[in-house]
This record gives sequence, structure tokens and C-alpha cells, in this order.
Amino acid sequence: MIVVMKSDATAEQVEHMTAHIASLGLTPQVIRGAHQTVIAAIGEERAGMTEALEPGEGVEKVLPIMAPYKRASSELKSERTVVKTRSLEVGGTRIAVIAGPCSVESEAQIVGIARKLKELGATGLRGGAFKPRTSPYSFQGHKEEGLKMLAAARAETGLAIVTEVMAPEHVPMVAEYADVLQIGARNMQNYQLLQAVGDSGKPALLKRGMSATIDEFLLAAEYILDRGNPNVMLCERGIRTYEDHTRFTLPLATVPYLHEKSHLPVVVDPSHGTGKARLVPPMCKASIAAGADALIIEVHDDPEHAVSDGSQTITPAVFGQVMAQCRRIAEAVDRSL
Amino acid sequence: MIVVMKSDATAEQVEHMTAHIASLGLTPQVIRGAHQTVIAAIGEERAGMTEALEPGEGVEKVLPIMAPYKRASSELKSERTVVKTRSLEVGGTRIAVIAGPCSVESEAQIVGIARKLKELGATGLRGGAFKPRTSPYSFQGHKEEGLKMLAAARAETGLAIVTEVMAPEHVPMVAEYADVLQIGARNMQNYQLLQAVGDSGKPALLKRGMSATIDEFLLAAEYILDRGNPNVMLCERGIRTYEDHTRFTLPLATVPYLHEKSHLPVVVDPSHGTGKARLVPPMCKASIAAGADALIIEVHDDPEHAVSDGSQTITPAVFGQVMAQCRRIAEAVDRSL
Amino acid sequence: MIVVMKSDATAEQVEHMTAHIASLGLTPQVIRGAHQTVIAAIGEERAGMTEALEPGEGVEKVLPIMAPYKRASSELKSERTVVKTRSLEVGGTRIAVIAGPCSVESEAQIVGIARKLKELGATGLRGGAFKPRTSPYSFQGHKEEGLKMLAAARAETGLAIVTEVMAPEHVPMVAEYADVLQIGARNMQNYQLLQAVGDSGKPALLKRGMSATIDEFLLAAEYILDRGNPNVMLCERGIRTYEDHTRFTLPLATVPYLHEKSHLPVVVDPSHGTGKARLVPPMCKASIAAGADALIIEVHDDPEHAVSDGSQTITPAVFGQVMAQCRRIAEAVDRSL
Amino acid sequence: MIVVMKSDATAEQVEHMTAHIASLGLTPQVIRGAHQTVIAAIGEERAGMTEALEPGEGVEKVLPIMAPYKRASSELKSERTVVKTRSLEVGGTRIAVIAGPCSVESEAQIVGIARKLKELGATGLRGGAFKPRTSPYSFQGHKEEGLKMLAAARAETGLAIVTEVMAPEHVPMVAEYADVLQIGARNMQNYQLLQAVGDSGKPALLKRGMSATIDEFLLAAEYILDRGNPNVMLCERGIRTYEDHTRFTLPLATVPYLHEKSHLPVVVDPSHGTGKARLVPPMCKASIAAGADALIIEVHDDPEHAVSDGSQTITPAVFGQVMAQCRRIAEAVDRSL
Repeated sequence: MIVVMKSDATAEQVEHMTAHIASLGLTPQVIRGAHQTVIAAIGEERAGMTEALEPGEGVEKVLPIMAPYKRASSELKSERTVVKTRSLEVGGTRIAVIAGPCSVESEAQIVGIARKLKELGATGLRGGAFKPRTSPYSFQGHKEEGLKMLAAARAETGLAIVTEVMAPEHVPMVAEYADVLQIGARNMQNYQLLQAVGDSGKPALLKRGMSATIDEFLLAAEYILDRGNPNVMLCERGIRTYEDHTRFTLPLATVPYLHEKSHLPVVVDPSHGTGKARLVPPMCKASIAAGADALIIEVHDDPEHAVSDGSQTITPAVFGQVMAQCRRIAEAVDRSL
Repeated sequence: MIVVMKSDATAEQVEHMTAHIASLGLTPQVIRGAHQTVIAAIGEERAGMTEALEPGEGVEKVLPIMAPYKRASSELKSERTVVKTRSLEVGGTRIAVIAGPCSVESEAQIVGIARKLKELGATGLRGGAFKPRTSPYSFQGHKEEGLKMLAAARAETGLAIVTEVMAPEHVPMVAEYADVLQIGARNMQNYQLLQAVGDSGKPALLKRGMSATIDEFLLAAEYILDRGNPNVMLCERGIRTYEDHTRFTLPLATVPYLHEKSHLPVVVDPSHGTGKARLVPPMCKASIAAGADALIIEVHDDPEHAVSDGSQTITPAVFGQVMAQCRRIAEAVDRSL
Repeated sequence: MIVVMKSDATAEQVEHMTAHIASLGLTPQVIRGAHQTVIAAIGEERAGMTEALEPGEGVEKVLPIMAPYKRASSELKSERTVVKTRSLEVGGTRIAVIAGPCSVESEAQIVGIARKLKELGATGLRGGAFKPRTSPYSFQGHKEEGLKMLAAARAETGLAIVTEVMAPEHVPMVAEYADVLQIGARNMQNYQLLQAVGDSGKPALLKRGMSATIDEFLLAAEYILDRGNPNVMLCERGIRTYEDHTRFTLPLATVPYLHEKSHLPVVVDPSHGTGKARLVPPMCKASIAAGADALIIEVHDDPEHAVSDGSQTITPAVFGQVMAQCRRIAEAVDRSL
Repeated sequence: MIVVMKSDATAEQVEHMTAHIASLGLTPQVIRGAHQTVIAAIGEERAGMTEALEPGEGVEKVLPIMAPYKRASSELKSERTVVKTRSLEVGGTRIAVIAGPCSVESEAQIVGIARKLKELGATGLRGGAFKPRTSPYSFQGHKEEGLKMLAAARAETGLAIVTEVMAPEHVPMVAEYADVLQIGARNMQNYQLLQAVGDSGKPALLKRGMSATIDEFLLAAEYILDRGNPNVMLCERGIRTYEDHTRFTLPLATVPYLHEKSHLPVVVDPSHGTGKARLVPPMCKASIAAGADALIIEVHDDPEHAVSDGSQTITPAVFGQVMAQCRRIAEAVDRSL
């Protein structure tokens, strides 16, 4: 860390901070500038140290130097992580496509759509059995019944199942049916849930919180990795900004930036990222051009009668076109789909 | 709702939407303008209806008319809610002050600071036993031991205990020791937790999510109210914006706006809202002038050695000054403190 | 517009608003719902009408229906605008690439880089002669001398010159040398400047303000169009959000959304949009996949010694690679480059 | 500055950066940590240096240490600036109140309202003669005629006139009639305008850009100060965030923070800051409690028929109540109004 002292900091204050840095197990090195003094704190930066130094008398600010995450970092592990489970492989040359309805509505619905998606090239099936809903008056999902319907769709098609888990106590049940446990944006900092998913050993698809920084996102992944579960996929799904013409703002520069900082594969969700079905196809293409390892897309046979998220859901017919277009983009970046 | 059709929508599309509105149990009323047609959908707007209408062919956008929350609304209950538990009363003429350290560190610490705070005028004691931390490598709290220390401080001072609960399965344990269950900003949309706190019957202090809209905030309160628990306090704790000189941006217009839309009392947290100890005193004053019913403030005997949040923590000496200044502001708005 | 009355609005208040709507030249139509009354105001929505209706007693909110821009709208003109000037054509099947240094530093520099860029496939040359700088102590550009250097580079290469104009009184001078007048993000709502550029008749490249909504962006274009100048290019250059790992957040969903709402061509600036040279190549590719009609990219022979914006500037060598990669993406979306 | 090298930076890269730092006239000091090397660059940080160092090979990031503004800084001038002109004094113990309509509509209107405001305690009169409007189809102000009407109101009441100037070429004309030149939020980074206002020698009221950081805000003030004009007032008027229940988000922590960093007085505009007339009174009180030196408030006899900004405009009757309430808050913070 670099402790920047105020321009009018006294010699005593500098000395006090030097001692405080030493007491944290770091080596202080004082640098006297024309206007102000800064103290470099050399050694292993640990969580909480910045907070410990900031309240010091005469301190202007404390600048961290090291990234706060370790296991998620590409410095620790330079080889890229590839997550594999059944039909799904995320992080390799081939781009994966996880598709399906927002909510599992019935066995007939999910099996039917799974067959179509498989045929059109999807390699994973998404579908919500537990639904986090902004309003308590919205449909909350078929829960275990929904999980069974997903399992039936897998039995029929072989597609790996990606489904959300919302509470630590549901992890064992969801893990019994699903191949990938999805942690939703609203739960990105639900630490008990992250730990439970880490303990489950199941591959995790971690969605970025809607106002999470990249450091916070990778620290959330760190909670899972730290429990010995290496199979984490990072999912950019759009952030909350002042923009009002889309549901969220989808910042695709996240994709190459995450690839630089972390070895974990990166998935993009253009359905939530835009909230508008018409914008999904171009953003699928842009995501692949930006380097995404996988897409997760909401598809429903009849978006107008979907029980949730109809506005951002495309039909199987549009999905087929998206696949054809994305295949061409994938080839243009030396990948396949 | 108002369904706005595109300017080139066909008569068939308008007819289709009219039928769709009717199938939702609403009465459609078509209004033909110079440029485009809009269809008013009269009746009880329910969750999910907007999503059902938006994907319709020829639809430009769907505008909701009614507020999505019911029980939290001042339309449903015009009498203001006052939450009372032991020494703490929030929502009446007297402004409540909940103070204490970020984390409970030891029994001596919490009992010692509780005595000072009580003497200086605090009416509630805050302190974290379960700590949600961005990094898995940060101190996570003393858990049940911490709760016992808080109970000891209450036995000593009579101050009501406000402490965070992070997971549904911990609710019974935390409820055994605490007087108010705090739901942190990161958990504002952890629906299982909201329901468990609702079921507990204990007063709840619900912090606004760092990128929550007011509708989302009141719908989160609705999850608690809907379980039959009327004792919810809304806490503005700052939102995430592009501003980088404070930890969060503290938008005080929320206070009168929430008072207009809801009967629930409003608490402000200037410690998290600014992240800087020096800014806490003026923002305490501003909060009261804006109409806050209570403040929640981080106070520690030695912020430099606090195990968490030192940067935004004030000392008991500063807290004493804040109380004196705030008392004058309270009187200037015809309240007491 | 739709005037939504409060649930407790009186009959007199509804009547008063009905009369107010009629006095604005609109036809009111009252719709009585279960909970509240709304009044549709039928006719041509004009600027300022919302503001006139909102303060009415008993009014909850006023919802505009029509887009506030006219000439920029794809409803008014469905044929797409193609801006052509010398070597540059923006809006057709071929994707244009405008490249060059942030600042014009010397004639040798700009002529030298222009030759390389031309050879590598650029169709326009960018370079700042007037520089809007956050600090008064930063280099402010060579002004008219810089414009002459740009003209020399054009004489040498035939590349169309794109350069910023910062004040209405400079428009005639800049228009004398440049082919395209660029309006910077900080000046997107400098209305005198927009009008002066409109009056000049020169093609304009209008950058989106860093916190502009799409409506505000298109209304700024409207200021230029309204002066009889049809040659406006819209440039997405990133918006300000809470994200701190990039200089700005580059929201590529803007590209298809603008194409849907407007007939004007859309340019993307991945240099300012990310602020990081390493992120420029992937975001160039993503922009084209999202449908951009042109890219504008900062290129300098020696970014470390550029007088401005070195952090986000790529070298000619990298630019050559970007062109090769983007050509493949362009083909994958049935365009050329 | 602190140049943070990547963990895998080579010795040559560190050496190269050391030489680069020296070539900028700074003294490099290399600090070797466990994981990575950082280089302190000691000496006077100047604009553009960060940009020059960031593109270096092996550089992870560059952290500035010194504030980029000088003349606006409280380090350079510790005595607080008080701006005085006619009836208006901003920055002293007495809190100033500048009030008036958004737009000057007629001489009768502005003289009439000025008389009422004076009687109710306003010390400055605001009113727009040049109006920056988002849409080219909105009323753009009475221009010079409007200025004459303002001068008539001053002749009648003695109130100092605060009015916006939108273009450098209008500065002499506006300066002829007005006492304070207001620079609007959209023009905060219109550098030619800032310089022209600086050259005029007239007191300036500089509004914060709607997405400006504090550094950018103070650097904009620096442009005016740097022309030898010391009379600058900083005006917080709300920032653009994701919040949708108010027109802007009004972050009052700006007030004490600006007071800490700068000697310039701080004005708050609760009318634009909220966009809702009902929220203006509580935010006036909160602004004073937070330490504001002045308020600027939109007041109109008949907001429903104001030509602009009616939604956020209060009546003289409400203004009278606001003054009475604010007087009590002012006393509670040992000031007067």
C-alpha cells in the first residue's frame, strides 16, 4: 500500500504511521516529496489493512497496490480454466451456448424447448425452478418440481442443466438435479450461498452483481474457489447505470479485462444485459467478437405467454438465426460454435 | 397500464393486444392519437403483467401506472408506523440514534462503548456479530459469541440491540439475542432472508441495496410485511454512483420521498453513506433536517485499531459533539433527540 | 401524454387538468381506473408540455408517449443517411475507419502517421488542433497551425480530415480546413456550437455526452439537423458509470438501438470508450459485430511520448492487426472494411 | 505519482520507466516489494504526466498523489473566499438565498416576483434570459430583452442579478446587465466560456456538471481563477445516477467535502437537484444543515403556467415557509439567513 500523508502532516504523524505499518507486519519506506510525504508499506497486503491505516491522523488517503483476490487471479494460475460437465464445455476454443426459458413452466414445455435448442446447437439448458422476484406477488418458481422437469429434459436431450440456487439450504437439493449451479446477480454477495456452492463441488455460474466492481466480482468468485471448488464461470449480465432505454447497460469491455486479470472463463448474458428481445441478436454477436467463452440466452416458444421475462426473450426461430450469425463471428475470431 | 403501440402498428396488432389485455382480466380502452394508438388497461395491475404485454407485436412500450407495492404504501395505511422495542422508538417525534462499532470485538469493548453511548444519548446499540465481507480473507465476525456479548451490553445498559443477520438459517439464533434484525445492503434482495425475518416477527431494519430503486426497496420491505411483520424500518445508506471521493453517494431526498410514498419510518446511515469519518457529522445534521426518523452511526473507541470500517468510524468524543449539534437541528424541525 | 392523477385526486382536480390539457391544444380523454384516474392528452406533444402539466394539483406524474426528436427519427425518414466527404463514407455497407493521434503535434508527425494509416486501410484522419482539456495546465492544441498541418496531411494522402471544434466562433476557421467537424462529448449540449456547426453545412461527428440519455443525444443531433444540415454522424464514446477499471463504460447496445430509432449512421470510439490501449482491439471487433458503421481510433507512433491520451492509444503496428481482424468480423456481418 | 509495475515486469522495464520519470523532471525512487515493484516519482506533478507514464511497457497503473487543481485548493489559500456583489454576499456567516423563476417571461413578471422575494428575504434574484434547452423546439429565452427586464427588477429592488451565460461571445453583453454570471451544468467543461467568464472579472456561479467528479469540478473553477478572477462560487445541483424517482440525485456530502478541499463558497440548487417541487423545502433545510453558504431556488407565481421547469418550481407562499424553516436551521448551525 501507499499511505499518502496530508501536505500539513507533522513529523510525529508520519512517525506514528510508520510504526503502525510495521505493527501490521509490513516494511515502511518513507518518501519525502516536495509537497507531501508518502509511505510505502512493503509486504503482503491483506484484507482490512487499508481500513486500518486510513483513520490515522494526518493521512490523506491509502492506495492499495495489490489485487485483493488471489485464487481467481491470472498471476497465480496462468493456465486458463475450462469448465466441463456433460454436454457443456466453457473456456475452450469452442464457444458454448446455454439457452432456455426464464422459468420452467411444465415438463412438456421444458422438454419441448430443450429438444429444439439441442437441434439448433445449444450445449446447455437454462431454466429457473427457484425464481428471485423483485415482488413477493410474482411467480416464484416450481421449486423441486421444476428441478425434476429439468432433469427430465436432460434425460431426453443430454443437455447439461444450468439453474439458479437462491439459498444455502437449497444447495444440496439443487445440486442433486442440476449440472451447474447459477448464483444470481442479486446474490453475488450472499456469502453463505457462495460458500455452500463452493462446498457442493458443482460447477458454478456466478453472475456479476448489478453494481459490482470487477474486484468485488472476483472476490465473490474467490469465496467459491476458496472452498476448493475450481469450476467457476464468471457471467457479465449488465450493470445498473443512468441509461433508461435498456434494462441494464451491458459493458462488453469486461470480457477482455476479466480474461486479462483472471483465468476463469467468461459468459455473457445479453438477455438480462439489454432487457429487450430485439437487442439480443446483435449483442450475442458483439459478445463473441469481444471474446466471450459462452452465451446464456433466454428462449421461449411463446414469449407473450412466458410467466416471466417475456420482454427479453427470443423465440426458437430467432435463436436459430442467432446461432447461424454467431457461428460466422466465432470463425472470424478463430473459434467455433 | 398504458400499452403504447408503435406508429406503424397494424389494426390487427391493436386488436391482438386488446384481446391480450382482456385475457389478463383487465379492461382495455383504445385511444387513437394523431401519431400512434395507446391502449389503457384498466383494473388491478399485478406483478408480471408488464412483462406479458411488452413482447406483443407492434408494441413500443408498456407504462405501469400503479405502484407495485401495497402494504408498504401510504395509500393503504395513512397512519405512520412507529417501531418500538425496549429503549428504541423509531418514527415518532423523538429522533432515535443507534450507535456502536462496526464489529463486536470483545465483551469488554462492546460493554464499554455501550455505556458511553448510552450516556451520550444513544437509544440503540449496533454491532456486527455476523459480518458480510467483500473478501473471504477478512474478519467474518464472532457469530454467536458476538451475539452474547451484545446481550451482555444490553443487560448492562438497557439499550436495544440492532445487529445484522445474513442467512435464513441464522434468523432464529440472532432473533434470540437481538431486538432488531438488520438486513444488509447486499442482502436487500435475498428473498429467503426477507421472508425468514418476516416470519420471526422481530422488528427489521432493512438497508437499501446499493443500486436499488425506491420501488425495489419498498418491494423488499413488502416481502417482510407480507409475512405479517409490520415493524420495518427503511434505511438509506448510500448508493453506488460514479462519484469517487466518497465510498457511496448519500441521496437525502430519499427521506422525504419515502415519507410521501410509505408509512414506514426512515433511518439514515451517514457512516456507510460517506465512508469518511470527517463527513459523518455534517451528514448527520443534514439527515435530520431532511426529516430522518433515526440515525445509525459507527462509533469506536480507537478507529485505527477497529477490526473493520475504521475509515468511516467516529470516536465517542466526536459522537458527543454530533449529538449536541443534532439536538439543535432536531429542535429546529420541531422534533427532539 | 398520459397524466396520471393521484389516487386521492378530487373531481375538481381532474376537471382542472382536463381544461389545462385542452388549453394546450390537445384533446383530453379521461380514463377512470379502479384505483386512480388517468387522462390521455391526444395530439401533437410539444417540448415543455410535460413540465406544464406536472405541477398541477392532484397530479402524480406525467408520462410522455412520443419521442421528442423528429428529424433524427427513423419514423420521419426511413431511408438510412449515408455521410460522404472525400475518402470517407459512413453509413453504407463498407465500414469506415477514422484513425490518428489524439493531438496534432507537428506536420512531420501528422503527415507521417497519415501515410501509414492510409496504407493500412483508414478512410479518415483524426487529430486534435483544438483540445478540450480537463485542466487549464494541459496542452491545449496548436489551433490554426494544427489545422494547417492536418490540411497538409490530407494533401499528401487524400484522407478526409475529422477534427474537433470547441466554440461557435471557431466554426468558420475549422470548417475551412476540415472535412468533418467533431463535437466533443463535453460540448454535446453546447447549443450555440451545435447551431453553428449546423449552419456551416459541413458533416458533423457528434459525440455522445458522457451522461447523456439517448433522447438527449438525438435532441442534440436535432439541433444540427434543424439548421438544414443533414450530415450528422452519432458517435458512442462511452458513458460515465461506477465502473473504475476502464475510463468510461462502452455500452454497445447503443448501436442497434440508435439504428432502430434513427436513420443517422453510428460511429464507435473504443479508445475513449475504454481508456486502455489493450482493450481497444477487442472492442473494435465487438463494435463491428454490434453493427457500427464506423470506428474512430487513436493511433500514435510512440504513445509514451504522445502529448495527450497515451494510455488509450495504439501503435500503427497494432492498428494493422486490428484492421485485419476487423475485416474478418465485417465479412461475418456481410459488410466490408 | 506512484508507478505500479506488473508483477512480471522485467528489470529493463523498470529501468526504462525510471529513465522516463527522470526525463519528466521528476526524481524516481524504486521500491521493491514482495510481489511487484513500484516507482515513486517525486516532484511537481503536472497535467498529462500520468498519461505519459501509463503506456509504458510493464506498467500496471499510475496513481496520482497530488490534487490536480492549485488556485482552487485550500492548501494554497486557507482563508475562505467571500463573494460580494450588491445585495449578495456568499461565503460569510449569513447564508444567501438566490431565488426567482427559471425563465424571465416579462418585465411585469420578473419585477413582481422580485419584489415578493426581496420582502421574503432573498438576497439575489435568478432568472434565465438565455436558456439552454435539451430540445431545439423549447423556448430559448428572451435574450437581451430578458437581461433588460432583469436590470429593471434590480433597479426596483436592489437585488443582485444572477443569470446564465451560454456562449463566450455573449459574455460582454450579459456582464453589462448581470451581477453574477452563471455557468450551467451542461457548460461546466466549455472551456472557452470558462475563460471568457474569467476574463470578464464578474463573479461567477459555476454549476457542477451532471457527471463531473470533484476534481473535474474544481479544475473547471481553476479555468476561471487562472484568468485572474477570484470570485467563483461552486454550485452543487445534482448528479446523474440510476435513480429515477428524482430528476437528479443531490449528494449533499459534496458540501463539506468541497469546504475541506477548497476555499471557495458552496451553493446548493435543490430545485434542479430534485426536479420535484415537493422535495425542495426539505432539501433546502438539509443543504443548510450540511453547511451550504447559499441556496438557489426556482420560484414562480404560477408554476403551472411557467414557460419552463414548472415541475420543480415552488410558489412565493411556499418560499416564505422555506425561509422561515431555513432560518431556524441556520441558527442551529450558528449562522443566520
